[in-house]
Amino acid sequence: MSDVERVLRRVDEQLPQAVERLFELLRIDSISTDPAYKDSCRRAADWLVEDLRSIGFDSARHDTPGHPMVIGHQPGASKAGPHLLFYGHYDVQPVDPLELWHRPPFEPAIEDTAAGKVIRARGAADDKGQLMTFVEACRAWKQTTGSLPTQVSLFFEGEEESGSPSLIPFMQANKSMLEADLALVCDTGMWDSETPTISTMLRGMVGEELTITGPSLDLHSGIYGGPAMNPIRVLTRILADLHDDQGRITLPGFYDGVADIPEDVRSQWASLNHDGGKFLQSVGLSQAAGEADYSVLEQIWARPSCDVNGIWGGYTGEGFKTVLPSKAHAKVSFRLVGEQDPERIQQDLHQHVEDRLPADCTVSYRSKDGSRATVMPVHAPAFRNAQKALTDEWQKEAVYAGCGGSIPVVGHIKQILGMDSLLIGFMLDDDAIHSPNEKYSLNSFHKGTRSWVRILHALAQR
Amino acid sequence: MSDVERVLRRVDEQLPQAVERLFELLRIDSISTDPAYKDSCRRAADWLVEDLRSIGFDSARHDTPGHPMVIGHQPGASKAGPHLLFYGHYDVQPVDPLELWHRPPFEPAIEDTAAGKVIRARGAADDKGQLMTFVEACRAWKQTTGSLPTQVSLFFEGEEESGSPSLIPFMQANKSMLEADLALVCDTGMWDSETPTISTMLRGMVGEELTITGPSLDLHSGIYGGPAMNPIRVLTRILADLHDDQGRITLPGFYDGVADIPEDVRSQWASLNHDGGKFLQSVGLSQAAGEADYSVLEQIWARPSCDVNGIWGGYTGEGFKTVLPSKAHAKVSFRLVGEQDPERIQQDLHQHVEDRLPADCTVSYRSKDGSRATVMPVHAPAFRNAQKALTDEWQKEAVYAGCGGSIPVVGHIKQILGMDSLLIGFMLDDDAIHSPNEKYSLNSFHKGTRSWVRILHALAQR
Repeated sequence: MSDVERVLRRVDEQLPQAVERLFELLRIDSISTDPAYKDSCRRAADWLVEDLRSIGFDSARHDTPGHPMVIGHQPGASKAGPHLLFYGHYDVQPVDPLELWHRPPFEPAIEDTAAGKVIRARGAADDKGQLMTFVEACRAWKQTTGSLPTQVSLFFEGEEESGSPSLIPFMQANKSMLEADLALVCDTGMWDSETPTISTMLRGMVGEELTITGPSLDLHSGIYGGPAMNPIRVLTRILADLHDDQGRITLPGFYDGVADIPEDVRSQWASLNHDGGKFLQSVGLSQAAGEADYSVLEQIWARPSCDVNGIWGGYTGEGFKTVLPSKAHAKVSFRLVGEQDPERIQQDLHQHVEDRLPADCTVSYRSKDGSRATVMPVHAPAFRNAQKALTDEWQKEAVYAGCGGSIPVVGHIKQILGMDSLLIGFMLDDDAIHSPNEKYSLNSFHKGTRSWVRILHALAQR
Repeated sequence: MSDVERVLRRVDEQLPQAVERLFELLRIDSISTDPAYKDSCRRAADWLVEDLRSIGFDSARHDTPGHPMVIGHQPGASKAGPHLLFYGHYDVQPVDPLELWHRPPFEPAIEDTAAGKVIRARGAADDKGQLMTFVEACRAWKQTTGSLPTQVSLFFEGEEESGSPSLIPFMQANKSMLEADLALVCDTGMWDSETPTISTMLRGMVGEELTITGPSLDLHSGIYGGPAMNPIRVLTRILADLHDDQGRITLPGFYDGVADIPEDVRSQWASLNHDGGKFLQSVGLSQAAGEADYSVLEQIWARPSCDVNGIWGGYTGEGFKTVLPSKAHAKVSFRLVGEQDPERIQQDLHQHVEDRLPADCTVSYRSKDGSRATVMPVHAPAFRNAQKALTDEWQKEAVYAGCGGSIPVVGHIKQILGMDSLLIGFMLDDDAIHSPNEKYSLNSFHKGTRSWVRILHALAQR
């Protein structure tokens, strides 16, 4: 029996203990966005430090102005293999509305469902369950063979669900602790419950909050309606003009840097047989609203988009109040692909706004840090080896997928540490992350751990 | 000395007592919108019933599902004169924010200011002070000559500041008690502190709350941005298209029934020397946003307008949340003039919305009752006589003014009781009605009372 087979057998045998360890972590209510849970976040970090030490990692908690980071290091059996940096986060989303949970969110349990056994708890999938798949894979290697196949560092943060305010400064100040050859990021999902997936394209993002000010105070629309410019009128014009009738975004030069989808990628995606109609139908829609020349999947994975994420101004309560407001606000964001430059798009948006601003109105901005899109080197050996390991475990060809969302840490790893990231995760679309009754399939947890066992072995063989 | 002169002298002599009576009424915190003050509203109604009885009115409190109405009747000396129905309201606005008041809002006092003595209290101007000018004029007539010059009914409501929910049903059910020849409504102001004013044009209004629904639930803009239609995008297009670049409203046929301003009205308004630039400057604006061919005053008094009074959708809190919302909302209202038909405009708005609604979106409406514009018969004898009486009192030509706002009771009086209203009031622009430190000029109260003394006499001479 090979090393890999022995390690996999240990994973199978020790599954109940692994679940119990995950439950310990899930019982810690490490909600990062609410200061009331600051202590819980520290307890989760300390739990991880101790657990990593028990597997032989040289691990420590690193305090920040926000929640602590956890870092652990362990050499590998092979000096020739790459040094891997695994990233995950131990903080979780808030649990409101609590009344929609059918069990307390921090009292994890295995539940039987039509789709098999699931682990039910806040954080079960995002990201405690996912990060523990990797930790359990390391434990199984260490306990079975006495060492890891290759050098591994672990990097866990506790602010991912609250905007990661400490992440960039910490990474910049601690580059030497985080240096490695390749990053592994386990915060993504599977194409479906049977198809293992490597996410190789992530859209970038840039966001802007606009405040249009017209009159210096709220006015009565009877006394001023007509001659007084209403900032909501100005804002709606600005926002309406961001799209043309074909669903294209109108900022001049917006599509500069948006490459055509390569033919091999396009055909691989086509082979996924994604049913765009069904995808939209599941959220009450029947027609794709994006660019007409692209399939739904292509619109999400390979085309940029623009959404107003929030808008507000004037009276929004019950009944009518005939106010002509002083201010109107919107939060706008763009999803970026290819080489689109967030800073340039921000500037172009400002120009678009100012071109439509009457003399009497002013605008102010609150910018969200932008991130570029990520395109991974799918032809590099590490990607091919990982794909093969996943295929072996799941007995189904692992696919390279896009991802419409943005995972900012991937950009930071590239820009600050100079590394590509291998994005592998085992979440399913119905895991209800960020929602009540979050769950993680027990199969994801078990086969996810087995997948990392194989990937660690495969990557060490370079 | 004529009767009128003797009555006016009595008004002058009894001013301190009149102020003390007004203070009694002002001390009652009759805030109609807050159920906690229900008792206070009843006490204010009872106070009025008693006070009217003391002047010889046959008066009574009439309970409603909301706050009570007060009605009083008294025959006049002349059977030939018209039967007048005076309308006012005894309820007041809430007082928040209390900390901005420099004295308790329900402890009235006379204060010296740069512009002369003022009565400071919530309701001093709107509408207790104004309605008491008329009551005091009746008292002076009665106590001096033993009777009123002509038959008078009084009609006070207690829900004007909370949407008058009982008003229409009460008027419909009690037409016979409210029948008269001409209504007097004292809820308006003066052109300036020296120029008495009859308001003869009021804009009508129609309002609509729109809810656009796209996806059946809030979505993540990373996972759905592009193919999923964002209802905010649809709403902003609908709202932006309501105006063209010249500030005109684009609904087809919207201007049907909007008459040109008659030349004599236009020249009278021009003689007011309204400084549109200064008017806009006082609220931080420099350019009229309405139709380019009309002055600021004309835009407010004689031209229709459209304002979005409120808009909301998606995430409106701190920071960013990349939601693609299921719903977007707006409250839209139109100010109407001339013969514009609120129902037709509502239908045209619906058509405008539905013309811009993608197949995947739905719209729902919550309508606000519409009211037509009011144009008073300024050439009728009653209007000419009242104008002359005001001119005599203030020694300055009384002007016919427009009013950009809507006074719904005027429409109800016309539609339910079939009467025109003579809109005369003595508020000044800086009375801070609905705001902290509301005041009523002592001069408004004194000369307002004297004005009604003269008007009662003048109207009786038909």
